[in-house]
Amino acid sequence: MMAAAWTIFTIVGENPESRSQDLNDDVIDGVWEDRNPKNGRREPFCSTVECSTTITARENVGQYGFVSEISSGSVRIQRVQSKWYVPVTKTDRKMTSINVEKYKLSDKTAKLTAKDIIPVVQSSDSAETREFLNKIAELLVDYVNIQNDRKEKILDFHHPEDMKKLLSLDIPEQAVTLQQLVKDCAMTLKYQVKTGHPHFFNQLSCGLDVVSMAGEWLTATANTNMFTYEIAPVFILMENVVLSKMRKIIGWDGGDSILAPGGSISNLYAFLAARHKMFPDYKEHGARALPGELVMFTSDQCHYSVKSCAAVCGLGTDNCVMVPSDEHGRLIPAELERLILERKARGQIPFFVNATAGTTVLGAFDPINAVADICEKYKCWFHVDAAWGGGLLLSTKYRHPRFTGIERCDSITWNPHKLMGALLQCSTIHFKEDGLLISCNQMSAEYLFMTDKLYDISYDTGDKVIQCGRHNDIFKLWLQWRSKGTEGFGKHMDHLMELAQYEVKRIKQQSDKFHLIMEPECVNVSFWYIPKRLRGVPHDAKKEQELAKICPIIKSRMMQSGTLMVGYQPDDRRPNFFRSIISSVAVTEADVDFMLNEIDRLGQDL
Amino acid sequence: MMAAAWTIFTIVGENPESRSQDLNDDVIDGVWEDRNPKNGRREPFCSTVECSTTITARENVGQYGFVSEISSGSVRIQRVQSKWYVPVTKTDRKMTSINVEKYKLSDKTAKLTAKDIIPVVQSSDSAETREFLNKIAELLVDYVNIQNDRKEKILDFHHPEDMKKLLSLDIPEQAVTLQQLVKDCAMTLKYQVKTGHPHFFNQLSCGLDVVSMAGEWLTATANTNMFTYEIAPVFILMENVVLSKMRKIIGWDGGDSILAPGGSISNLYAFLAARHKMFPDYKEHGARALPGELVMFTSDQCHYSVKSCAAVCGLGTDNCVMVPSDEHGRLIPAELERLILERKARGQIPFFVNATAGTTVLGAFDPINAVADICEKYKCWFHVDAAWGGGLLLSTKYRHPRFTGIERCDSITWNPHKLMGALLQCSTIHFKEDGLLISCNQMSAEYLFMTDKLYDISYDTGDKVIQCGRHNDIFKLWLQWRSKGTEGFGKHMDHLMELAQYEVKRIKQQSDKFHLIMEPECVNVSFWYIPKRLRGVPHDAKKEQELAKICPIIKSRMMQSGTLMVGYQPDDRRPNFFRSIISSVAVTEADVDFMLNEIDRLGQDL
Repeated sequence: MMAAAWTIFTIVGENPESRSQDLNDDVIDGVWEDRNPKNGRREPFCSTVECSTTITARENVGQYGFVSEISSGSVRIQRVQSKWYVPVTKTDRKMTSINVEKYKLSDKTAKLTAKDIIPVVQSSDSAETREFLNKIAELLVDYVNIQNDRKEKILDFHHPEDMKKLLSLDIPEQAVTLQQLVKDCAMTLKYQVKTGHPHFFNQLSCGLDVVSMAGEWLTATANTNMFTYEIAPVFILMENVVLSKMRKIIGWDGGDSILAPGGSISNLYAFLAARHKMFPDYKEHGARALPGELVMFTSDQCHYSVKSCAAVCGLGTDNCVMVPSDEHGRLIPAELERLILERKARGQIPFFVNATAGTTVLGAFDPINAVADICEKYKCWFHVDAAWGGGLLLSTKYRHPRFTGIERCDSITWNPHKLMGALLQCSTIHFKEDGLLISCNQMSAEYLFMTDKLYDISYDTGDKVIQCGRHNDIFKLWLQWRSKGTEGFGKHMDHLMELAQYEVKRIKQQSDKFHLIMEPECVNVSFWYIPKRLRGVPHDAKKEQELAKICPIIKSRMMQSGTLMVGYQPDDRRPNFFRSIISSVAVTEADVDFMLNEIDRLGQDL
Repeated sequence: MMAAAWTIFTIVGENPESRSQDLNDDVIDGVWEDRNPKNGRREPFCSTVECSTTITARENVGQYGFVSEISSGSVRIQRVQSKWYVPVTKTDRKMTSINVEKYKLSDKTAKLTAKDIIPVVQSSDSAETREFLNKIAELLVDYVNIQNDRKEKILDFHHPEDMKKLLSLDIPEQAVTLQQLVKDCAMTLKYQVKTGHPHFFNQLSCGLDVVSMAGEWLTATANTNMFTYEIAPVFILMENVVLSKMRKIIGWDGGDSILAPGGSISNLYAFLAARHKMFPDYKEHGARALPGELVMFTSDQCHYSVKSCAAVCGLGTDNCVMVPSDEHGRLIPAELERLILERKARGQIPFFVNATAGTTVLGAFDPINAVADICEKYKCWFHVDAAWGGGLLLSTKYRHPRFTGIERCDSITWNPHKLMGALLQCSTIHFKEDGLLISCNQMSAEYLFMTDKLYDISYDTGDKVIQCGRHNDIFKLWLQWRSKGTEGFGKHMDHLMELAQYEVKRIKQQSDKFHLIMEPECVNVSFWYIPKRLRGVPHDAKKEQELAKICPIIKSRMMQSGTLMVGYQPDDRRPNFFRSIISSVAVTEADVDFMLNEIDRLGQDL
């Protein structure tokens, strides 16, 4: 992995291509002014602009790269193999996006401030409040529509320093008007990345489920905390219904669950419950309660939060043992057993094994039954991190063999905000054994969880969690689930998998341009783009290094042209490669074809 | 503390008051049918209805209580001092609330499902999507207005088992229609507790700031994750601006901060950073890296999450030392020093001291400078949990002496979702020293935090946190802060404090009816209600026990009449007492008077 730093030129009135010939040093820095020095007018930057120059040194330049199009006020320039490039990436994308000036309040309301609307005004029907909120809703509904336009840019990229100048983010001493607040909202959306755009394949969470979003609007408006039935009766009952249904789908009749702020905290809950189950005195006595050092095991492909548990909870990352994975990224059970025995021989205490159901990069599924056998043999807690792959539990077609044996695990993390497309955040952790969450995490705060309440206090959840207050993450999922039905949700999972299979097929059909790294088990598709100069060259480690260099260049072109977002990363076996994710409900086969064609277009000259 | 369980009668066709005479057992259960057996019509329940009876045993009844008004289909009955009561609590509150049938989509749209709107339909201007979202917005805007109506009930209380019957929470196999989804939303709001109602004084987070809510709607619509600038450019910059401003207000020029899902996790971040700072090898080697047992210190009034850190992170709660507090609930510095020395004498390592700025129950402020002196002397990390009181940092009038010396702490938790009224959740943790968060929590996930990105990666926050993905909690705060201005926010804090002082004054003026427990330092006001039979009786421990018994009775009457919500709890020095909180921007002096008068009304016969 190369750390390619960026260089900022000060190029005022000089052709940077020719100027770069003089540079025998990588250290250059500065500010671009996009004025044509001949006429003083601001113009789109191109390599023929004449400039005068001031160049000062600041930071190293990497060995490869290209020069981006211009965003107001600065340009970043990179070398590709010791040659300087200053292309302007052309695009036919629209960037109408949000028109910041469109959302006008009436003259009267425009000048008001927050003091003039509910809840400061003692009204139960405030026209000004309605006008303000309706205007915000109009903007948001426009955004939802515009975002779904495949001719629109996904983003209007600016470097952080430029973005700061474009936006007015500072907080004033005095209140701004309601009109300014509406404008603030419009400005924010104009420059935000449209993660729900059908050509956003960049993250495990892609897309915008409109029903789930409506649910989240309501959640905001209800603005309650999830710790007691007293103040969240409907939402607490919804949690019971949905989490119980998820446990049934896992294959359990009883058990217990909770929603957590993300998969990392969900995994932490599993770790804590496992330790508490095995060493109940640990809660009071800490490490003294242990007969020796605890050791946990997970594959070398796991999410980094598993290792983070070891750092947070006192094991130390040394005692989070990384088990080798096979070529598909799946934990090797024989290696797990070997490492457990090795640690036992050292007098340590293996107590927790994590299997990943859908690894972050490759989408691999660790073999659940084989790991379960080993956990039973060595009396380890068996946790499954299905934060990513969990959605496939809903699919009759793809559930097996990926999740075969899942009911044998002790705990499972499952994030509806990933494959299932619920709004961020929505993460769940489920336990086979009931009562562990409360006995592990209970601190019995008398001010909140009194036992002499009006209602059945078994519905209060607050004392089960390490958070005290919790955001309401259930309503958006409950409403979304009803909008699809359980059968419909399963079919939606199938559809995403089929689109990933379509992508694989198209990559194979264009094997001159694309190199498929492996047959995926999930919707992660890993591949290289092969530029013209490397087509037909035998695939070896040297070629992989060349293909890897292409990834950040194409990625930055994607971002600057705004047409596409696909992630890349290295892993422990290969340098940079693309990993596309299809988890957005918006994506079609045509969008998959667009993705591949656009990568090819952006990589034409590389 | 008494655990008053509830009893459900089956009373069909009998006068429960006379029936209760026959009961020499506490175990009775059943279902109420609100039909007059004479004419078969549904009528409001009252004690003169004639009934036939079936009574079956289920659960114990407590020693005191009263019988509530009827909610559809069931009645709960309690004994007050071995006499059965079946009063119908009269209230002049409206319960129009949300009319579930009002929100009608057009015939065409009503029948559609989620498959027929964006993002499944490939449209960039979908009339059906607009209609659905506009209808949801109309409902939410109605709710915001209705909630501000002081004649409206705060809640329509039902016991969990009854609520389940009223709502249809189950998840079907097949998709429900868009009309049903709208109805689901309306039903949810109808039965949700109106935490933004001006008479909701129940929680540290009260009220609904409409601008912050608009911000949260936008947050949902933007639906992005906060780990990288790549996908959250605007929001990442907003975090920088707002958190840096908060650090300036604390009194620091540099430092680092992060938003976390609640104060408990913020406190956990402080704990982890402190341990990492003092024992940097702990991250890899765990407890082996320590020269002895770590001990932390906090007052006996602290939030329970501080103790939870000790359980989670490996100290054990035994090593979270509870320092005695004075009669106002403030940590006693001399006791802190004594306990530090005591633990040192045992060979343990004091390393972390928490002072609370605004305790949960009493709103007490620990003496910051005195604690800071001790931390310096014994080289302990000094953390301040200002989750609750932090807002007063904005007040020129009330900041001192409460926060005098705050710049001396190493870390501070400050929740804008509490006193400042930002929407849930919005919690911040600030560090005086920059770089600790990243070095403590970094796991260097290469798939997400590559160093060869297009932009300045110092803006990526993901590797600083234990969460990986984070919800966007900044926009609602940024927009809200702009809507008030910094000066306006400070004055708003002053206003809340002045209302609490008004409440204190009114309690003192009615000292026959109310007993003020102490002069508050924050907006928590602690008091007892004195029923007629106890007026003029000298105040002693026995009387306190009687006053304490009144609290849950009045609280359940509040909930069942729906007119008021004020919390009660015991603490380590006294049995149950009321603690009202004024953190809602909606509250006025008239609302404070209403609170006291309504408690008096509900307690007339006790």
